[in-house]
Amino acid sequence: MSQNQIGQQPLVTLLSDFSDRDVYVAIMKGVIAQINPRLTVVDLTHQIQPQDIAAARFSLMNAYAYFPVGTVYVAVVDPGVGSKRRAIAVEFAQGFLVGPDNGIFSGVLSQSPAIAAVELTNLNYWRTPQPSKTFHGRDIFAPVGANLASGVPLKQLGQEIDPASLVKLDISNCKQTTNGVAGCIQYIDHFGNLVSNIAGTHVQGKTWCVQVAGLSIPGCETYSDVNVGEIIALVGSHGWVEIAINRGNAHSQLQINLQDALQVLFV
Amino acid sequence: MSQNQIGQQPLVTLLSDFSDRDVYVAIMKGVIAQINPRLTVVDLTHQIQPQDIAAARFSLMNAYAYFPVGTVYVAVVDPGVGSKRRAIAVEFAQGFLVGPDNGIFSGVLSQSPAIAAVELTNLNYWRTPQPSKTFHGRDIFAPVGANLASGVPLKQLGQEIDPASLVKLDISNCKQTTNGVAGCIQYIDHFGNLVSNIAGTHVQGKTWCVQVAGLSIPGCETYSDVNVGEIIALVGSHGWVEIAINRGNAHSQLQINLQDALQVLFV
Amino acid sequence: MSQNQIGQQPLVTLLSDFSDRDVYVAIMKGVIAQINPRLTVVDLTHQIQPQDIAAARFSLMNAYAYFPVGTVYVAVVDPGVGSKRRAIAVEFAQGFLVGPDNGIFSGVLSQSPAIAAVELTNLNYWRTPQPSKTFHGRDIFAPVGANLASGVPLKQLGQEIDPASLVKLDISNCKQTTNGVAGCIQYIDHFGNLVSNIAGTHVQGKTWCVQVAGLSIPGCETYSDVNVGEIIALVGSHGWVEIAINRGNAHSQLQINLQDALQVLFV
Repeated sequence: MSQNQIGQQPLVTLLSDFSDRDVYVAIMKGVIAQINPRLTVVDLTHQIQPQDIAAARFSLMNAYAYFPVGTVYVAVVDPGVGSKRRAIAVEFAQGFLVGPDNGIFSGVLSQSPAIAAVELTNLNYWRTPQPSKTFHGRDIFAPVGANLASGVPLKQLGQEIDPASLVKLDISNCKQTTNGVAGCIQYIDHFGNLVSNIAGTHVQGKTWCVQVAGLSIPGCETYSDVNVGEIIALVGSHGWVEIAINRGNAHSQLQINLQDALQVLFV
Repeated sequence: MSQNQIGQQPLVTLLSDFSDRDVYVAIMKGVIAQINPRLTVVDLTHQIQPQDIAAARFSLMNAYAYFPVGTVYVAVVDPGVGSKRRAIAVEFAQGFLVGPDNGIFSGVLSQSPAIAAVELTNLNYWRTPQPSKTFHGRDIFAPVGANLASGVPLKQLGQEIDPASLVKLDISNCKQTTNGVAGCIQYIDHFGNLVSNIAGTHVQGKTWCVQVAGLSIPGCETYSDVNVGEIIALVGSHGWVEIAINRGNAHSQLQINLQDALQVLFV
Repeated sequence: MSQNQIGQQPLVTLLSDFSDRDVYVAIMKGVIAQINPRLTVVDLTHQIQPQDIAAARFSLMNAYAYFPVGTVYVAVVDPGVGSKRRAIAVEFAQGFLVGPDNGIFSGVLSQSPAIAAVELTNLNYWRTPQPSKTFHGRDIFAPVGANLASGVPLKQLGQEIDPASLVKLDISNCKQTTNGVAGCIQYIDHFGNLVSNIAGTHVQGKTWCVQVAGLSIPGCETYSDVNVGEIIALVGSHGWVEIAINRGNAHSQLQINLQDALQVLFV
């Protein structure tokens, strides 16, 4: 925790489905600055498709490991805002998670388990005791995140709850087969790269290929292992088996979509 | 002003129609850092449609209240750049406004009146005495904003002008009717929520519905008060009556557009 | 270098073709914060079209002059990632450039020559000695940039190379003609303004017009010199002759595209 040794405040990261068109994200940053203007805020992404908890879960799971220990991750993809879904904060080895209890953090916590969790019931750390029914990001999650990053202990933020009670998002797992692994596409990135739910550890040190949509694609190491325009299977930078086209867009060119099945075969 | 008590610099916020595709916004941040690298800059939004002063006015009006007192709001939606429109800075209770005198600040100032205003005529606080004819954001507004945030008094920035002389943007106001309020759609957000110009205070504590496009929509409290896919009227997080579809896009699904009329009826 | 006189860390800027949809940019910021949480990071743009090195080169060339001396410019448009293209850092009068050796910096260096250059061969300044084959932004360029901005000398980052050996991107130059200058469109911005490769210095103090696509467009000073909807030629804020439509989109309305030829004629 070198940033604490030199008296640095923890980072606060923001993730949402607010896009950058409206001022919703800026308002959350203003609320954080009202509480502690010395905090540094980093945007993870605000381009999650509206209400797409699965993409938010994937994005958080793939980003958290690269931030300093102690970072506070505020995430607001919250179709249940105003209903009885719980607002939560969770402590884990790398820092803190703040947002709705709808499974958005279940990817992170599958890799690095919760140490403690609270339901955000202490109104003293909200922006107002009468929060908007539609924008808890502004009235609850951003101010609670700013307070956590400023040193307020987790357990002051509300009533302790059992981490085992947190909502999990049911993402299908990949399955070992007799001669490989069966999985599906769990994310498509901006380049059109098709990211599967098969971890790269399955193929490490092996000769392998991917079978998908009638194609058989040999496993390689990097985009430029094939010619421009050719299809490639590789372990992407997030650590998952993915399908790409060198300098092309695999999603639009291959017509392969989210949830589509694929198979890794060992040769 | 806690941020001053601890010796913190005020924030500078930026709003424009520059999008994030080109380097225009980054250049403004560079210019600010050249003047004072310790300033923190927060983007309000740069996705205002080109030259849409009304949307910029709405965005500023709905964001300023959430930032620390003393914040400097630089706004550059400036179709008249290079013409004789004035460049201005305005002091108000929450901080300072810097940009073209084209009505962009008239929403903020309708809620929190100007204390003092200057025309930016003092070239010492510009990036160059010979500014570009097309990019005053870089050459005048960003450097003036950085100087204000660094402690230069407003009145050193140019010639004092009468705040009453500032350009106002003529946004139609809502009107009381015998049994309700008549208004129009003044903004459509990224989720497709249709934001009216009827303040939520009109419906507080009442039973009400919205009539629009042949529909009668009962007033509720939050999105999840209705089923997924159903239409709802509610007071949105900015404090205006708005029309939404739970987990849907009211703008595209209802074919209701900016400026379309609607009525609130008390039941 | 006023920012150093007051003990301020240099800025790190980021440019890429990662867009803001995925968490790739955020991961680079996390990696930088792990190395030095006091560094300020500014986004130049992440909306470069995938693998468009020419647009990245143009954007860097037009932005660097507006940042404080000592700024570290990390740029990752890197279709050759994982191949044998070199990873480099370059010192120039205004600061440092870090990225792939694919011509992305050749515009900056055509204006402000390299003082020294290294190939990034010292694994001690990478995030890991076994970097991803597909994401050097995270594993090499961001950490090297953070180390440079934190005071690590250029020559510790790897083996010195001859600046003359750096890859140049072959952008066609404009040519003097008997009565003017012949050039082409080198960039189209978000407003649809058509930016040529003819520097404004060619037309300074002259009466001139642009001939393009069968049109003859008189040279003016600013957008509002013509009526709304009219075509104008002017020297844009970046210092290049450009074609615009007052409050319109010249790119879509005139059907003029990247690389299309145009001529400046002196009258």
